[in-house]
Amino acid sequence: MPPNPRSRLRVVLVAPRNPLNIGASARAMYNFGFAALRVVNPYEVAFREARSAVRAAPLLAAAEEFTSVGDAVADCDLVVGSTSVGHRELQHPLRSLGPAARIIRRRLQSGTAAILFGSEKFGLSNDDLSHCHWLLRIETAAPDQSMNLGQAVAVCLYELTRAARPAAAPREPKRASAAANEQITVMLLEGLERSGYINPLTSASSEDKTRRLIRRLNLSQRDAAVVLGMLRQILWKLNEAGS
Amino acid sequence: MPPNPRSRLRVVLVAPRNPLNIGASARAMYNFGFAALRVVNPYEVAFREARSAVRAAPLLAAAEEFTSVGDAVADCDLVVGSTSVGHRELQHPLRSLGPAARIIRRRLQSGTAAILFGSEKFGLSNDDLSHCHWLLRIETAAPDQSMNLGQAVAVCLYELTRAARPAAAPREPKRASAAANEQITVMLLEGLERSGYINPLTSASSEDKTRRLIRRLNLSQRDAAVVLGMLRQILWKLNEAGS
Repeated sequence: MPPNPRSRLRVVLVAPRNPLNIGASARAMYNFGFAALRVVNPYEVAFREARSAVRAAPLLAAAEEFTSVGDAVADCDLVVGSTSVGHRELQHPLRSLGPAARIIRRRLQSGTAAILFGSEKFGLSNDDLSHCHWLLRIETAAPDQSMNLGQAVAVCLYELTRAARPAAAPREPKRASAAANEQITVMLLEGLERSGYINPLTSASSEDKTRRLIRRLNLSQRDAAVVLGMLRQILWKLNEAGS
Repeated sequence: MPPNPRSRLRVVLVAPRNPLNIGASARAMYNFGFAALRVVNPYEVAFREARSAVRAAPLLAAAEEFTSVGDAVADCDLVVGSTSVGHRELQHPLRSLGPAARIIRRRLQSGTAAILFGSEKFGLSNDDLSHCHWLLRIETAAPDQSMNLGQAVAVCLYELTRAARPAAAPREPKRASAAANEQITVMLLEGLERSGYINPLTSASSEDKTRRLIRRLNLSQRDAAVVLGMLRQILWKLNEAGS
């Protein structure tokens, strides 16, 4: 692989509770050669405890803390949620880990990607999922029980580094960053409110739905710029009309 | 696979010290559909604590305890030692996990096999290794540091069950018809004209570009309906403003 694709993967733990799991995730990252750990709203005691663990110390010390998933993935072109159970997430394309890892690996050749892992107890929320382009599932024999967090991270990173197939990948245009997708989402939401499509008072679920919709489009960087320009102009007109 | 090959694999933990690791190993076995856990000379307190863990209770309750590796693998046709570091074991053939799992899987079709995992601190001793036919290694990027025991078990069992699955195509929702895409294109073009983004007199190439953009989005049938609804409302508002 060119320079270091592994440095362009962010492992994002959302609301982890258990210091041992944070430590185990960091250790697996070290084992498989990854470094960028991000933590969103950790249970603070857990995060402090994990940081004090000896083994993965440098990696954990460099871990970045965020207060929202949106911020944690803002610089990522591809955002993938992980799940080991199979209900609920019907709005998202679901890929099993093998094919998912191939896509992520390809993306890391030239871009950045994030894999999100939910909390031990609740997994990823609908709001977390709305930031994801698609989901990966570790196919287990017991779909009624989720995997341990540290083990799920280890299995994903193992698959990601597993004998990369030499199969030449078709060249894909660079995808839009999460920040660009979010900008589009925000402008579209404003337009939808202005035009009366969304009622601002009851818009929370519309917001999630719209965010997911935009992520599903999987816009290229260039298309995202065009869409932004279109939205900006439409919004300007709508605001002019409203004033 | 015939009857149940997975029931013929024994996961053997040699001298484990940490109850959490024993519990995590049992949980991974449950996740991936294995059942036969064997423990050789565990640190007794750890084993008792692990047994009291709720999640993997039945599997742990059924775990068999042995006082020697020889006894623990007596009924196994193939005995494989695991390692994530690479020194010392030069007497044994060493296979990386992918090829190793293929051989073990084949053996389980008609026979029994054991995978040995050493203690957290010391790994497998030379005496333990003397019972092994060969060794498997999880190829990590950091050969100076061993993997966490529970994570190593999870990764091995994942690989063992990995190729057994049909390469399932992601469940993709039905795509929007060409007619729906065209309807979206027409409405978007109208909105872009209304808002001044496109000059109607010189719009031929914009029309092409917009049509191609919409096709690239590769909308699902359901998303197309949502987008149409959004556009209809925005257009209505723009027209109201213009009149």
